[in-house]
Amino acid sequence: MVSKSQIKDVKALHLKKYRDESRFFIAEGTKIVTEVLSTYPEIIHELFATKSFIEQNSKILNSKLKLNIVTEQELERISAQSNPNQVLAVCHFFSLAKPSFDFKNNFSFYLDDIRDPGNLGTILRIADWFGINEIYASESSTEIYNQKVIQSAMGAFLRVRVHYILLDEVLNNIQCPVYGAVLNGKNIYKETLQNGLIIIGNEANGINKNNLSKITHPLTIPAATTNHTESLNAAMAASIISAEFFRQLKS
Amino acid sequence: MVSKSQIKDVKALHLKKYRDESRFFIAEGTKIVTEVLSTYPEIIHELFATKSFIEQNSKILNSKLKLNIVTEQELERISAQSNPNQVLAVCHFFSLAKPSFDFKNNFSFYLDDIRDPGNLGTILRIADWFGINEIYASESSTEIYNQKVIQSAMGAFLRVRVHYILLDEVLNNIQCPVYGAVLNGKNIYKETLQNGLIIIGNEANGINKNNLSKITHPLTIPAATTNHTESLNAAMAASIISAEFFRQLKS
Repeated sequence: MVSKSQIKDVKALHLKKYRDESRFFIAEGTKIVTEVLSTYPEIIHELFATKSFIEQNSKILNSKLKLNIVTEQELERISAQSNPNQVLAVCHFFSLAKPSFDFKNNFSFYLDDIRDPGNLGTILRIADWFGINEIYASESSTEIYNQKVIQSAMGAFLRVRVHYILLDEVLNNIQCPVYGAVLNGKNIYKETLQNGLIIIGNEANGINKNNLSKITHPLTIPAATTNHTESLNAAMAASIISAEFFRQLKS
Repeated sequence: MVSKSQIKDVKALHLKKYRDESRFFIAEGTKIVTEVLSTYPEIIHELFATKSFIEQNSKILNSKLKLNIVTEQELERISAQSNPNQVLAVCHFFSLAKPSFDFKNNFSFYLDDIRDPGNLGTILRIADWFGINEIYASESSTEIYNQKVIQSAMGAFLRVRVHYILLDEVLNNIQCPVYGAVLNGKNIYKETLQNGLIIIGNEANGINKNNLSKITHPLTIPAATTNHTESLNAAMAASIISAEFFRQLKS
């Protein structure tokens, strides 16, 4: 049973404004929430779950957890999903340590104004796959606590930290190549890649004009013909670029 | 000005059933429709456009075109987009030639039950980028005329043909390696890749059990650690795999 005020409080978290004020966000669905419960239960502030979820997951449900049993109808009222799936967790924001700026063992991304939450979610998954646990993003990029980011990142949002920071501040702290995904750079397959920072630009406008000059190594994913899609989307470009860095540096 | 019956006819095309019956589909927005007008105008059956779209695109608007001038409000009534953008084209289905089954010059995909329209759209873009103009898909895969496919494929749907066909029928017509993206295959970076058919499986369940045995070369994209995202999504996997085939075979 959930009260009207609980419904109001949870629904408020669909909006960035209230997430920022309260420092809570929402993660939903059996797959994601069971991963949070198994690997990072301390971030859960409160759980809204159906009886059947609770029965099936009794082993990972800590007795200290603030647990509300809800019907599917009640879950629908607080959910931001079109098909809510058994459970919704209200979670604390991550306590974010300072960036390590560690490029000794891996490459990383600077997201320059990535706006599409699905793209950010996908980039978190790809970072997670390739063992990148810290990425950077401009303040104008989508916030990681946006529900579409959380839902599309799956469990990756638990393992990859995003630091919202000016590019200049990152550059002041690192001494490695600054790569950029651009349309007229060098063929990525002909370059000898090193651990470095890879700038991925905005979906419509690419990398910010002021940041272009900071790229030391412009990179391009070659296309087969000239009569093609005018550009790859940000998440596809990040996927292909990460895979090539990984292939050269680690495989 | 659009009539009630026009509104009804266009809105019917939001549903697969009526697309199949009429053999028409919808493409929307200035970016996509200007690309159709410039490169493939013969598929347009009817255009619904605002005055400003018509003024800005007079050069590519053929006088024979069935053109309806609409207000933004009227466009909203027929559009499937949350933010309709100036123009909607009702297009004829492509007249699909028989598959060429040509693997001499390129690799291609068999999509085994890809259900997410965004994934299919992304895969069309990636195919377009890497010069693949013919891909194959199980009948259970999303139809290409789904509006989310068209909108996410951008212009790629104009250049990449999708043949809905049984895997066995493709296999009967080709003599090349059959690759499959699986979790326990060989490291893609250690394999010498050849032009071949690459099977990409369903988002939740992977490649159909009956089709797994037909793979001659199972492939895996290696991950950095074991403590990661359990799988890459279908579109990301297709992006990374295509890029590696392209790198080895063509770059």
